[in-house]
Amino acid sequence: MLGVCYYPEHWPESIWQQDAEQMKELGLQYVRIGEFCWSRIEPEDGQFDFAWLDKSIEILAAQGLKVIFGTPTATPPKWLIDKYDDILPVDVNTGLTRGFGSRRHYDYSSENYLREALRISEVLVKRYGKHEAVVGWQTDNELSCHDTTLSASPAALKAFQTWCEQRYKTIEALNKAWGNVFWSMEYNNFQQIEVPFMAVTETNPAHRLAYQRFSSDQVIRFHRLTIELIREHAPGKFITHNFIPMDDTDVDNFALAKGLDFVSFDNYPLGRSDLFFSGDDRHKIAKYQRTGHPDYSSYFFDQVRGLSMGDFWIMEQQPGPVNWAQNNPRPENGMVRLWSLVAFAHGAECVCYFRWRQIPYAQEQMHAGVLRNDSSKARAWFEAQEVFEDLKQLDLSSPALPENRVAILTDADGRWVSRIEQQGVAYDFEKVEFAYYSALRQLGLNVDFVSQESDFSQYDLIIAPCLPVISDEFIFACKNSSAKWIFGPRSGSKTLDFNLPENLAPGKLQTLIPAKVLSVETTHKDLQEVMHYAGKEYTSWGWREELDAGLSQITATYQNGSPAILQHQNINYIACLVSDEFLMDYFESLCSELSIPTVRTPEDIRLARRGQYTFAFNYGNKATELDNVADKEFVIGSGSVPAYGLSVWIN
Amino acid sequence: MLGVCYYPEHWPESIWQQDAEQMKELGLQYVRIGEFCWSRIEPEDGQFDFAWLDKSIEILAAQGLKVIFGTPTATPPKWLIDKYDDILPVDVNTGLTRGFGSRRHYDYSSENYLREALRISEVLVKRYGKHEAVVGWQTDNELSCHDTTLSASPAALKAFQTWCEQRYKTIEALNKAWGNVFWSMEYNNFQQIEVPFMAVTETNPAHRLAYQRFSSDQVIRFHRLTIELIREHAPGKFITHNFIPMDDTDVDNFALAKGLDFVSFDNYPLGRSDLFFSGDDRHKIAKYQRTGHPDYSSYFFDQVRGLSMGDFWIMEQQPGPVNWAQNNPRPENGMVRLWSLVAFAHGAECVCYFRWRQIPYAQEQMHAGVLRNDSSKARAWFEAQEVFEDLKQLDLSSPALPENRVAILTDADGRWVSRIEQQGVAYDFEKVEFAYYSALRQLGLNVDFVSQESDFSQYDLIIAPCLPVISDEFIFACKNSSAKWIFGPRSGSKTLDFNLPENLAPGKLQTLIPAKVLSVETTHKDLQEVMHYAGKEYTSWGWREELDAGLSQITATYQNGSPAILQHQNINYIACLVSDEFLMDYFESLCSELSIPTVRTPEDIRLARRGQYTFAFNYGNKATELDNVADKEFVIGSGSVPAYGLSVWIN
Amino acid sequence: MLGVCYYPEHWPESIWQQDAEQMKELGLQYVRIGEFCWSRIEPEDGQFDFAWLDKSIEILAAQGLKVIFGTPTATPPKWLIDKYDDILPVDVNTGLTRGFGSRRHYDYSSENYLREALRISEVLVKRYGKHEAVVGWQTDNELSCHDTTLSASPAALKAFQTWCEQRYKTIEALNKAWGNVFWSMEYNNFQQIEVPFMAVTETNPAHRLAYQRFSSDQVIRFHRLTIELIREHAPGKFITHNFIPMDDTDVDNFALAKGLDFVSFDNYPLGRSDLFFSGDDRHKIAKYQRTGHPDYSSYFFDQVRGLSMGDFWIMEQQPGPVNWAQNNPRPENGMVRLWSLVAFAHGAECVCYFRWRQIPYAQEQMHAGVLRNDSSKARAWFEAQEVFEDLKQLDLSSPALPENRVAILTDADGRWVSRIEQQGVAYDFEKVEFAYYSALRQLGLNVDFVSQESDFSQYDLIIAPCLPVISDEFIFACKNSSAKWIFGPRSGSKTLDFNLPENLAPGKLQTLIPAKVLSVETTHKDLQEVMHYAGKEYTSWGWREELDAGLSQITATYQNGSPAILQHQNINYIACLVSDEFLMDYFESLCSELSIPTVRTPEDIRLARRGQYTFAFNYGNKATELDNVADKEFVIGSGSVPAYGLSVWIN
Repeated sequence: MLGVCYYPEHWPESIWQQDAEQMKELGLQYVRIGEFCWSRIEPEDGQFDFAWLDKSIEILAAQGLKVIFGTPTATPPKWLIDKYDDILPVDVNTGLTRGFGSRRHYDYSSENYLREALRISEVLVKRYGKHEAVVGWQTDNELSCHDTTLSASPAALKAFQTWCEQRYKTIEALNKAWGNVFWSMEYNNFQQIEVPFMAVTETNPAHRLAYQRFSSDQVIRFHRLTIELIREHAPGKFITHNFIPMDDTDVDNFALAKGLDFVSFDNYPLGRSDLFFSGDDRHKIAKYQRTGHPDYSSYFFDQVRGLSMGDFWIMEQQPGPVNWAQNNPRPENGMVRLWSLVAFAHGAECVCYFRWRQIPYAQEQMHAGVLRNDSSKARAWFEAQEVFEDLKQLDLSSPALPENRVAILTDADGRWVSRIEQQGVAYDFEKVEFAYYSALRQLGLNVDFVSQESDFSQYDLIIAPCLPVISDEFIFACKNSSAKWIFGPRSGSKTLDFNLPENLAPGKLQTLIPAKVLSVETTHKDLQEVMHYAGKEYTSWGWREELDAGLSQITATYQNGSPAILQHQNINYIACLVSDEFLMDYFESLCSELSIPTVRTPEDIRLARRGQYTFAFNYGNKATELDNVADKEFVIGSGSVPAYGLSVWIN
Repeated sequence: MLGVCYYPEHWPESIWQQDAEQMKELGLQYVRIGEFCWSRIEPEDGQFDFAWLDKSIEILAAQGLKVIFGTPTATPPKWLIDKYDDILPVDVNTGLTRGFGSRRHYDYSSENYLREALRISEVLVKRYGKHEAVVGWQTDNELSCHDTTLSASPAALKAFQTWCEQRYKTIEALNKAWGNVFWSMEYNNFQQIEVPFMAVTETNPAHRLAYQRFSSDQVIRFHRLTIELIREHAPGKFITHNFIPMDDTDVDNFALAKGLDFVSFDNYPLGRSDLFFSGDDRHKIAKYQRTGHPDYSSYFFDQVRGLSMGDFWIMEQQPGPVNWAQNNPRPENGMVRLWSLVAFAHGAECVCYFRWRQIPYAQEQMHAGVLRNDSSKARAWFEAQEVFEDLKQLDLSSPALPENRVAILTDADGRWVSRIEQQGVAYDFEKVEFAYYSALRQLGLNVDFVSQESDFSQYDLIIAPCLPVISDEFIFACKNSSAKWIFGPRSGSKTLDFNLPENLAPGKLQTLIPAKVLSVETTHKDLQEVMHYAGKEYTSWGWREELDAGLSQITATYQNGSPAILQHQNINYIACLVSDEFLMDYFESLCSELSIPTVRTPEDIRLARRGQYTFAFNYGNKATELDNVADKEFVIGSGSVPAYGLSVWIN
Repeated sequence: MLGVCYYPEHWPESIWQQDAEQMKELGLQYVRIGEFCWSRIEPEDGQFDFAWLDKSIEILAAQGLKVIFGTPTATPPKWLIDKYDDILPVDVNTGLTRGFGSRRHYDYSSENYLREALRISEVLVKRYGKHEAVVGWQTDNELSCHDTTLSASPAALKAFQTWCEQRYKTIEALNKAWGNVFWSMEYNNFQQIEVPFMAVTETNPAHRLAYQRFSSDQVIRFHRLTIELIREHAPGKFITHNFIPMDDTDVDNFALAKGLDFVSFDNYPLGRSDLFFSGDDRHKIAKYQRTGHPDYSSYFFDQVRGLSMGDFWIMEQQPGPVNWAQNNPRPENGMVRLWSLVAFAHGAECVCYFRWRQIPYAQEQMHAGVLRNDSSKARAWFEAQEVFEDLKQLDLSSPALPENRVAILTDADGRWVSRIEQQGVAYDFEKVEFAYYSALRQLGLNVDFVSQESDFSQYDLIIAPCLPVISDEFIFACKNSSAKWIFGPRSGSKTLDFNLPENLAPGKLQTLIPAKVLSVETTHKDLQEVMHYAGKEYTSWGWREELDAGLSQITATYQNGSPAILQHQNINYIACLVSDEFLMDYFESLCSELSIPTVRTPEDIRLARRGQYTFAFNYGNKATELDNVADKEFVIGSGSVPAYGLSVWIN
């Protein structure tokens, strides 16, 4: 299914009808509206104007379009900001207030704002919650975007003190848990606790981790109350939220997703690739500047599918050049279609383009739309049309993906711990996890993302690139699992309160694999050393742990001959950062042992399987012939995948 | 004519007489004084000491030296700062007050400071305005230097609210003009308006552009009132201001210059080149580190001549190493003379060296002077002496430059729009404009700088590298012009209030050339692509617009064959950033069509024509033979231009 | 002698006994305790708990271990911070308060904190000052670490005003000394004086230098009062302080060291090398990433020996990977032993490892210890054991080093002046001084560090890399010295109050060498030019002074033939930054003239002489044969120095 994001309040009423008709003409079924319109529905405190909104919904409904309504709480109006003194968030690096004039200018710990946000949401959901055309709701918009999870406001500090008291009960327990005796940081009572920022030098990592968890909880509180409110007044309608990339939320994404009917994602392959790879070699950047990295969108798709526990939506799909990255190239012709189909192949139920028509004013005027601001059809129109035709060829009604056999285990603690305690500038949680993911994808594997709480029974190969904090329940689950497990460096290296485990790293993992980490070193990013594995030379770099192998088997060794990777029964432990080449060979070998079929795709080709279909996507500028597909039944394309194109066949 | 900047208050009275005699000996005619002396003429509130100043002026006058008096408002004394709480400016990025202890520590929106500045100026101009030796006045000093145009003070905010009310009349009009409905940024009244800084994420570009214009207006208000005051009390005396480079003022320079008798410029070729080219290849930097880039001084000279509507002055000329760039090399021997003559060749009436004697204390103690701090003669003395002799050979009495046939069209909106909406990090207004200028200069062309309001009748080739906001009057003028016009990318892309034009870019230009910009992309600075023009391959980079050529002719195409440059009758539109090589070939071809003679000068040679003279300047370290000058009458030098030297002949 | 840093408050009482026994087993004699324990001895205002401390000291004493007690003033507890509003320091770049939550969160100008710090110190020194096992005291901990010397607090400003009044007596004298007439910065009274930060543009360098000196005096005041207090109540016990690298204190280190019995240093070769060389070529970084630069530790050892006027201690010795550099590699096996022996060879009396056991919580949990956090023996245990065995082979009882004949002259003014007035980004005081030092060390020379007040009679070659401010007494001493003197660029270039000398640079040095600096240039770091010396080509770079050689002899010339290095009798003046190759050849030549024996050691080998011994250290990964040692009596090792190993022989 296809949809679009639309803002009737940005356009004269006179063209609403034509807009709706054109949406229908394009084959769109869903229209998201409303998420930034607070100043138009409540222009002054308590004075409402719904006439325009009623009418615009009727016009859409009359064309058979289904409306998704976004609660407008991401952009409180100026009169509300002025009414209360605690709504604006405070920058944690400077202590300076972050002002009005853009968006997301609210503090999750402001009780005034929470009340007001629920009030305006209630007004809307009561009015439209049972409207036939309003089939679903989006909570807020891109929660936590623009680094808004953390705030150093007085309200946040007070809430944090209460959070600490609830968690630790006594100040003595907190002091002990955090190790405040070090540097005489002990508190006498909870009211003395401060935010872990703006100190003379680095603050206690346990304090910082607690603040991350508290801040995450505040976002989740805001979100849960919004969900509950909608659930109460819009029975039978779906509730979703449009996530930004996992690393950018600063929130426990699994927890944030709870209570939603499904998860949505805002997919901007070029903008996101530009930022993610900005420090990399410019030739590498050049290669994918107009396509996005072949694995960087699906990396997020597979993650949100994990959050969603099934199908997901793309609530915003990049339709052309955007305005917010450092460089904003034009997608190659075909890429908007390709990105859309990649989403479907990875489990999307619906793809909505952002936005219907390019807006001629304000911050996003250089962001492309399906139409240009003069209502002429932009490139995205024609590619959406192709997607509409493509979807006719495919039966995606069955929600289930194939029973994927490979999973990556991820969690918020891994992100937080490795950001708080960088130890070496080369270590970057997201780059490490992405490298593991990309290696699997280049072997043609479908990959799920799971958490410590997941049911692992369907998987044969489970990989945790960075899992510092491990629960007892998880260890129990591992012991009962027959899957091959692979843990990356740092795994098991911290207790719940950011202490070293008493038995050294990998802590609780020692019950699974008899090994100890004796010391950790980090080295300059560009300084790589030989690693020996299976008779070949690879490289380790950036992070290396010194191991006591105990009774484990040594799978790979460092340049100096000491162990780098260990194995004990079905448990494997990688003690260092490794090259992409190693990851591919290593995973290929493990898959072979597990009889999981792999295929080394050509550099720019990626495969994905959904239901009865296999998709092949070509991110390169040359048509590419696929091997071993001569006998396949193609539903889209053929064995020769065109440049920036795709083929689909029955498995 | 030659002059010097002098600070009698820095030196013992006992050497003033000798200083004046030596100035005369060197052939200087003008001495600028006074612009930082407030604490010496009014050491305490209302208590004045003019004795020293009277005496120093008399001593200079007795040697026949003409005095230019700078109003001392760039450095209010400490007692004044302490008397009022609204004088210090506020940093727009942090909201922190910018303190006393250097210079320019005042807010243009402080009514208290405006009154006090006019008070001290009035005291001075009443006292010396009719003094025979005081022949002219300089307003303040380097207005807007050190990023002082923008302030986020309460006074500035209040003045901005009033400015908005005067401009937009109703808050509804402002909301509509800026598109505040986007992200619910609508205001209910003018008192709600905030500064467009320090928000959670980027603020509305229309808001930012309005703040730029307001801030520019505040500087101009301050300047105009100062000019009017001097005009009233110093009848018949000239009034000027010493400008810094155009990009650094953050002000509409054309408007700022209005009311002056002529414009002055402070010329620091090495310091400015070091900062401007700091990100460039180090070999390129090395080549010109002791000469300055051959086009970077004249780029400013030609601009200030445009502001001045005729001759201009160099009020401060670098005499040796300075102290304020990242690297401060020593000029090659000959360069102080060369820079001085370049100024005269481009229309300077007078060149004043900064400063007479190197000061042994405070912030600029490492800044060279004509004399060293022990009163010995520094290199600049001897080069100024040569300039004095050079000038004897030249008759520059006729003010007129030759009727230049080529002009660059520039304006403040172009700078502001492209800075506010960068869209791609590769785009830099000043670098783009400079590239166009430098290409013309390497073809031996004299270049004027004009604005949209200029009379274009004398020009055959007019080039607007970046003109996003276009007036109806300008379009009318273009239609009545038979010149060849060249518009660079972004031209016509915005309305007056920073909206997209309803008919797409290039907006109003579509009445001149039938074409539309369909989309814009920006790409990584280092990623260049082939551009096809006249059967040869060039490169485009950084910024590329996708064009609907309409009925226009296609002059050049991108790598993928789509149009990159269009022509329709006398109008040309370049839709991308291009290489220097392309610009030279392209301009050469256009000049050829227009029978404007061009000459490709050797790499380090530049030509300039003034009155009956042609000047050739050699920025290189090797003597260079000129072609086709065998029959010329040389007044300085010969057909072989020495390293770091020059030749002048009768046209 | 060997020792260790220990924190009984971090560990359960139950393992104290075993800890003490193991320390003894390892051959340790000293245990430093106490310096961060304030919150444990005074958990609430005026309520003390000494039981645990008494007991832990007794346990250590019972094993014959000697205790060094650190006054705990580097970490005031939260209740004290909350009691007074003037303790926290204020960031000079932002004016924002630097908060509680780490360490060193106090302002040296807070009278409240000074009183409280002396109070807690008095309580402790009264209780333990005469305890037999407590043999010495450490004042505070790493004074000035984390950029805490400078503060912009109201308390600091008020104290600075008083400091100015005491130094200059009248405001007129201050205005004149600083040259405040420039830019009308004159003050009417001392109460108007502000901190020299956060102004619109750069502040007066004289003002900044005064603030540096004032700030240094405040640290020294705090330190002296602490020393006096300990001296009073702990008669006969030694007092020391653990210094951080000289450049990081922002304090006059010679003055700070006065009153101590000896100086200690905290030696972290890998962390410090990572930070110091972070901008350098990565291959150079790679070579020494696990050893530290061969000269970078001894550079500090020789400096602190100069401060100490004799033997010194290593109070904290890196035992393995640390946590606070950008990259934190693991030392090569052998390096902990090697670093320890390097310290002894350069005059250390005792080396204490930091810390006994890796702490499992808080900021330093990734910092290695002698034991791991599970009490297993880390690499450092075994290397300390080797050191203990090594020391048995050596008789270091005689305190005297050999009468070194070569010295480097250094001072705080040189650091401050060159940091305040950078003039060119290439100039870095510490890198310049280190280059001189390293060249001498690569010639096998023992080097002392001295100040202008030192007795120079023992030296034949004295080198001042950067000595801008020179006293009359020093000039007198030079005149009476027969040593060869070498002064680097900038020497003699400033008066006491940061003015240019009236007779030009090198100012007072002109009484020793008849030469003048006519101008100074700085150039891009990477742009090097040929320098001619002794018939060979070297390079000058970054900083070049133009010289009037006067009657001096020209030793070396710039690329353009003008003088670069001058000599007059026993005085030499180098006017530029030079290559390492030049420094080695130049110093070798001078030593040859003075009959000081030099030896060009292989790249990774360094020699040091102490008493009757010569030490050879190998920082490389290959065993290296030494020349001319066949007839030596080896007490450790042999003529073949193993990789990361050492040899010692009788001279």
